[in-house]
Amino acid sequence: MSDLLDNPTVITVGARLFDDALRSQQVDTVAVDWRPPAGGVHTELAAIAADPRVEAANAEAVRRLTEARPHVVGIQRAGDVLGIEGPQFLHAGPPITWERASGPMRGAIIGGLLFEDLADTPERAAELAAAGDVELAPCHSRGAVGPMAGVVTPSMPVFELHDEVNGTTAWCSLNEGLGKVLRYGAFSDEVIDRLRWMRDVLGPLLAMTFERTGPYDVRAMIAQGLQMGDEGHNRNRASTSLFLREIVGELIEVDAPASDVADVCRFVNGNDHFVLNLVMPCGKAAADAARDIPGSTMVVAMARNGTDFGVQVSGTGDRWFTAPAETPKGLTFPGYTDDDVNPDIGDSTITETYGIGGMAMACAPAIVRFVGGSVEAAFSTTLSMYDITLTEHPHLQIPALDFRGTPTGIDAVAVVRASRPPAVNTGMAGKEAGVGQVGAGLVTPPMECFVEAVRALAAAVPPA
Amino acid sequence: MSDLLDNPTVITVGARLFDDALRSQQVDTVAVDWRPPAGGVHTELAAIAADPRVEAANAEAVRRLTEARPHVVGIQRAGDVLGIEGPQFLHAGPPITWERASGPMRGAIIGGLLFEDLADTPERAAELAAAGDVELAPCHSRGAVGPMAGVVTPSMPVFELHDEVNGTTAWCSLNEGLGKVLRYGAFSDEVIDRLRWMRDVLGPLLAMTFERTGPYDVRAMIAQGLQMGDEGHNRNRASTSLFLREIVGELIEVDAPASDVADVCRFVNGNDHFVLNLVMPCGKAAADAARDIPGSTMVVAMARNGTDFGVQVSGTGDRWFTAPAETPKGLTFPGYTDDDVNPDIGDSTITETYGIGGMAMACAPAIVRFVGGSVEAAFSTTLSMYDITLTEHPHLQIPALDFRGTPTGIDAVAVVRASRPPAVNTGMAGKEAGVGQVGAGLVTPPMECFVEAVRALAAAVPPA
Repeated sequence: MSDLLDNPTVITVGARLFDDALRSQQVDTVAVDWRPPAGGVHTELAAIAADPRVEAANAEAVRRLTEARPHVVGIQRAGDVLGIEGPQFLHAGPPITWERASGPMRGAIIGGLLFEDLADTPERAAELAAAGDVELAPCHSRGAVGPMAGVVTPSMPVFELHDEVNGTTAWCSLNEGLGKVLRYGAFSDEVIDRLRWMRDVLGPLLAMTFERTGPYDVRAMIAQGLQMGDEGHNRNRASTSLFLREIVGELIEVDAPASDVADVCRFVNGNDHFVLNLVMPCGKAAADAARDIPGSTMVVAMARNGTDFGVQVSGTGDRWFTAPAETPKGLTFPGYTDDDVNPDIGDSTITETYGIGGMAMACAPAIVRFVGGSVEAAFSTTLSMYDITLTEHPHLQIPALDFRGTPTGIDAVAVVRASRPPAVNTGMAGKEAGVGQVGAGLVTPPMECFVEAVRALAAAVPPA
Repeated sequence: MSDLLDNPTVITVGARLFDDALRSQQVDTVAVDWRPPAGGVHTELAAIAADPRVEAANAEAVRRLTEARPHVVGIQRAGDVLGIEGPQFLHAGPPITWERASGPMRGAIIGGLLFEDLADTPERAAELAAAGDVELAPCHSRGAVGPMAGVVTPSMPVFELHDEVNGTTAWCSLNEGLGKVLRYGAFSDEVIDRLRWMRDVLGPLLAMTFERTGPYDVRAMIAQGLQMGDEGHNRNRASTSLFLREIVGELIEVDAPASDVADVCRFVNGNDHFVLNLVMPCGKAAADAARDIPGSTMVVAMARNGTDFGVQVSGTGDRWFTAPAETPKGLTFPGYTDDDVNPDIGDSTITETYGIGGMAMACAPAIVRFVGGSVEAAFSTTLSMYDITLTEHPHLQIPALDFRGTPTGIDAVAVVRASRPPAVNTGMAGKEAGVGQVGAGLVTPPMECFVEAVRALAAAVPPA
């Protein structure tokens, strides 16, 4: 045992300074990345740890989330299924008012009014909205999700997904493609004309196609995409390719002019994010199934409205825990700088809630070229997420990690204990209304949301 | 320096036995995987090493191989471009006769005679072939390549690829899909009917499509596929998806019935190997550009006819160096065993010659589920190939290896020096004529081919 002092190995915990000091003296160290729990909620964490319901509640939440297998069953007019008509619009993230809305959210609301013929000019639209004439509600409150601003208006077509396993249904608007688009807050004629084409041609043709194909299995599409370099949030090139090749045989035979069919094919081919709007409601249908399980600490929604980041947890119902949204850091397009980037926006964090996106970065080394960062970071990001999740997804696997399941089911308690927020990659919207997308990057959800969730979970623990 | 003897670290070279013995005595070792050069050709290796032409010749061969950027320029009738009519057929691999041909090669020749209406029954076809009435030549001898049996008959449509960089052209038959197919030696009515549909519908519709799309960049397709889980030989799911989505907008608008267009889409969608027959002639056009450079030791063709494995090297012209083909090892389909597997067959090793396929296994961890083996093996296989190749492909990259270029340009000298043959993954044909595919696996090219190539290269070194 004399070796013990001759060749000491020191396990260091927490601050790197101590570890670095030992290493500089040639002492072998094993650094443990430990940080004190966030938010000074030791009492609350202890209360939850003593709650006998948690283990079974989380097991049930995990079971529902991972066994969900949502299929596209059709395309509907938003107003017919989401309880909105006239100037009633849905939006991304937790509740927001025009007064507190950021530039891209305001731009998308303006565009929505123009698209619905509720205003003739952007100026008139802004006046109406400022006067309180537009009724706003979160997509999440109606079983829907929307990328970026996530503005859904009554006349828009929406994908309808149904999960037979859990009996949930979810909806999402159709993806507009890149460049000047409503979801990034643009509202020029080009944007409105495209929305009309989507309403009049794209939506109806896809609706007829799904009638021919029957239900389309989105989880299977995602599972394959993860084996082909997608992570499901900012890279959906493989899944979009799989989707188009699988439906095109039926699309061609719908009763529509060949030129319209060809336009639909070219539109989908021109947009590698097309199926993001299938991936998101797949995650929504799965996460909604895991809601309202008393005692469960699993996150069932993370969403941003461009001003606030909001979190919902299974054991605390529909309550939003919010904090100011951070601004993403990443790669801006030519002509833009970090100063042009709006704070984090969109419901697309439903992908991370579902166990993909930032959680599955290791599937998509190529994405580091889109959001910044190194290939090594793609792997280490995913590996670090296993510490704050409840399970490894049995159906969504990471080839390069020997087919390990993706880290799935974010545990609000684990996030706070480890003081480690979920990894999120995202598109970046310009902060001025009308600008559109200015880049893509990584963003850190604010820890306060999770701390508040832990406080509420602790408050809901029944007396012993 | 007293540590030197207290804590020795021993570098062991070659046989693992010595390394294992030291390790069992707690001695730190660094094992170097060294084997004596194959074939006892030390004198020949020395002669080539002294040849002043080699370095520049190989640099030129590498430049031509890697800078090639072949495009599909159209579809032709094989007879019109490959110099065959009537009972003149091309086949995979080095030259072969009916007498020495294996079951799947004989089956494909029988099927070719039926397809060309040169025989009424399989029995009559076999009699004709046995009587020497079918003139056989390697695909490679006409600028073409063919997967598995690789039988090309005059009426078949062939993809035509042209490389403007080097001025080369290459051809390949169209992929028939899975199940009972000619290339695996099946010749039932189903096989012949499909070949007729490919001749009458698939070929003409794709020909009209390419007229509308203009030249289609196959190297770009491969480069993207490698970032999406393909390795280009036995996994082409991503590339097939990309190909279909990119051409379908134009395919829909060709002058043909919508039902035929839909059938073409369903046929391509139904076969993840469809673009193997674009990948292969891309490799062929690139490798042919690197032929006939005096002094170059780079392999420009590896091909198997089901009986022999053959290699051609840039510095030795069209001469084949052959040895008996090994039998692949891997996963057989239900109902078949290792005993049903034919020796290695097909021109598809042009993919490894081009720097993908087995060389790029690290791109496609998912392939280990198709050919057997572990994810770790996929990475170690690719890493071991850098030792026997001349370069890293500047345009074909491996995301999980931090976008390192694929090991490209097999050096016959390095293969022999390291006694390490190129890694090849492959489909497995049933050895009886008419059976078809029975599995997929890994195969080792026989070292004798490379030893013979080294002897010929040494003999061609000019006197000093």
